[in-house]
Amino acid sequence: MQNNYQQQKLGILGGGQLGRMVIQAAINYNIDIHILDPDPNAPCKAIANQFTVGSLTDFDTVYAFGQNCDIITIEIEHVNTEALEALVKDGKEVYPQPHLIRLIQDKRAQKQFYKDKGIPTADFVLTENKAEVMQHKHFSPAVNKLGREGYDGRGVQILRSPDDFHKGFDAPGLLEKLIDFDTELAIIVARNKRGETVAYPPVECLFHPTANLVEFLFSPATITKEVQAKAEAVALDVIQKLDLVGILAVELFVTKEGEILVNEIAPRPHNSGHQTIEGNFTSQFEQHLRAVMNMPLGNTELRMPAAMVNLLGEDGFTGEAFVEGLDEAMAQKGVYVHLYGKKITKPFRKMGHVTLLDENLETLKKRAFEIKELIKIKA
Amino acid sequence: MQNNYQQQKLGILGGGQLGRMVIQAAINYNIDIHILDPDPNAPCKAIANQFTVGSLTDFDTVYAFGQNCDIITIEIEHVNTEALEALVKDGKEVYPQPHLIRLIQDKRAQKQFYKDKGIPTADFVLTENKAEVMQHKHFSPAVNKLGREGYDGRGVQILRSPDDFHKGFDAPGLLEKLIDFDTELAIIVARNKRGETVAYPPVECLFHPTANLVEFLFSPATITKEVQAKAEAVALDVIQKLDLVGILAVELFVTKEGEILVNEIAPRPHNSGHQTIEGNFTSQFEQHLRAVMNMPLGNTELRMPAAMVNLLGEDGFTGEAFVEGLDEAMAQKGVYVHLYGKKITKPFRKMGHVTLLDENLETLKKRAFEIKELIKIKA
Repeated sequence: MQNNYQQQKLGILGGGQLGRMVIQAAINYNIDIHILDPDPNAPCKAIANQFTVGSLTDFDTVYAFGQNCDIITIEIEHVNTEALEALVKDGKEVYPQPHLIRLIQDKRAQKQFYKDKGIPTADFVLTENKAEVMQHKHFSPAVNKLGREGYDGRGVQILRSPDDFHKGFDAPGLLEKLIDFDTELAIIVARNKRGETVAYPPVECLFHPTANLVEFLFSPATITKEVQAKAEAVALDVIQKLDLVGILAVELFVTKEGEILVNEIAPRPHNSGHQTIEGNFTSQFEQHLRAVMNMPLGNTELRMPAAMVNLLGEDGFTGEAFVEGLDEAMAQKGVYVHLYGKKITKPFRKMGHVTLLDENLETLKKRAFEIKELIKIKA
Repeated sequence: MQNNYQQQKLGILGGGQLGRMVIQAAINYNIDIHILDPDPNAPCKAIANQFTVGSLTDFDTVYAFGQNCDIITIEIEHVNTEALEALVKDGKEVYPQPHLIRLIQDKRAQKQFYKDKGIPTADFVLTENKAEVMQHKHFSPAVNKLGREGYDGRGVQILRSPDDFHKGFDAPGLLEKLIDFDTELAIIVARNKRGETVAYPPVECLFHPTANLVEFLFSPATITKEVQAKAEAVALDVIQKLDLVGILAVELFVTKEGEILVNEIAPRPHNSGHQTIEGNFTSQFEQHLRAVMNMPLGNTELRMPAAMVNLLGEDGFTGEAFVEGLDEAMAQKGVYVHLYGKKITKPFRKMGHVTLLDENLETLKKRAFEIKELIKIKA
């Protein structure tokens, strides 16, 4: 018997939209998936083979959950890594490896890793409290990040001038020089247990001006072949130096001088790879499965230029969600709507996304902005 | 509020692979799907929002099932149409319309419809029993079909010479002249309640030599633009004359003289449209949802040439299935494996399919035959 994917139960910590899209990919392989999430109405609830309500950060809950699985992975990195390590000792396979999840949970350890391994990143200093932030006004303009618990733009702030430094986080964090970047890229890389690696072509991210969330993404990025090759080499270098099994989203700055700097990494499917479902030969969600289940990795080439538009809950609306403009969008060629099954909308909550395909990059961008105006998530 | 897809519960009669792929498409729209199937382990079981075990042909079961739904559709046509008509009287929406399901259930009524409406089809005669088949030896070579219950090659036989006519079905059926066709095409067409229609580009089907099942499919078909236009016009003519809401698979013969004849139709997603998931802008499964839920229809153009290889249970093996050759296939660019989640394999049982993408039609065909040799479903 050459494969036993169908005999292995895959446990995923987290049942949000990322887990949901992993399940969508897993249906084709008939993989038995068990989800753990604290929210009884999490997006994965209706489509997981088994769904357990429970804390992702509680040792006993995660440990008990893992006992029923053969392979365990994550769709969010804020999980109890001690429980995962205990599961590894029990003979379970856990990917990404628990010590790497722990490293990445802590932005300070992450930054230190780049420095130790010679991976290019913005200059930084570790700070223990606000007083220490205040001592580094010469970093201005700077980005101040909390070491832990930052997510989707929380725990990150820009200190534009020395006068802002009194707002510094009064907890362990880091202060890094604000990069005057030309482009913000993201690259998904993957690595399986056999050590095979692949990189997706870089994409370009546009962030929401205030919510600090990806709002638009364009694939491919409009960069030179040299910058692309350099960025891919850096991203592959990171996953290889980590020895990580799974997929890794690498966010990169391209400076005005054409230098590549690693900003942050996430060891799981990522918002910057949603367009791969329709835009590339293998989606990031299937690639994640392939990597953690030690299948051969899939081809990462573009099938067609793609844009991704995040459908964020409209500011000012909280309550049962409804979607405006869906019909008009669906009537267009190359529009793919993904709703995450979240009943309640809140300002800037990620409620879904749209992928848009268009051979012409100019038209693609224009249409992406139009889709954003067309589809509104209200209550 | 412009749409209420998320507020409508869609009931599907049948929980096999076709329903499973409809659910896969529905997840993106967060549509609440309720499945009825007699098999407690049907392919839809794990991913339907609700799954009811029950007979599709029993009035009370189908009627009770429909009471809990807003819109009801099918993934198999052998269902109790009286119950569906009662549900329509109760104000439920049922697509395709029950009288059309009844028409299509009966191959005799289907043929008569073509004749009455001027739709080109092979010459035929209706026969009540074997004696009547024997009276029409001048139809030789002929195809003898049972009026009802034929499915996946059952209830169909070829009578090659007058000497074969004693094998004629001794039940209501039909006898039609065997068409010496050049190509066997299939076209999926769709129509929504608003009366919008679309046609997919024709595909070419290769049947298994003995099992009478589609074994390979190539998209696009290698036909002239004129034949393509004619075939699409015939297929659209059929759905319009039926006034059908939903999707319709139209199987067509192209005779050696370039004439188009309708062979059979199926008012649901069909094996001849599986490659649309990866090969076209909108999959047939999403199109089915769009049609029955009165959404705008999706673009049907090809994204890339595609082949579909049915993964049939290997002859001589019955029991718990395992898949040979999966790893080697998955390592190839443009290979998409779809396993249907059936535990038990039987000779020629449809266990899954593979879609293959390749820009070059010659390479595509060569690779499709190789995939067939590579992946084997055994027990």
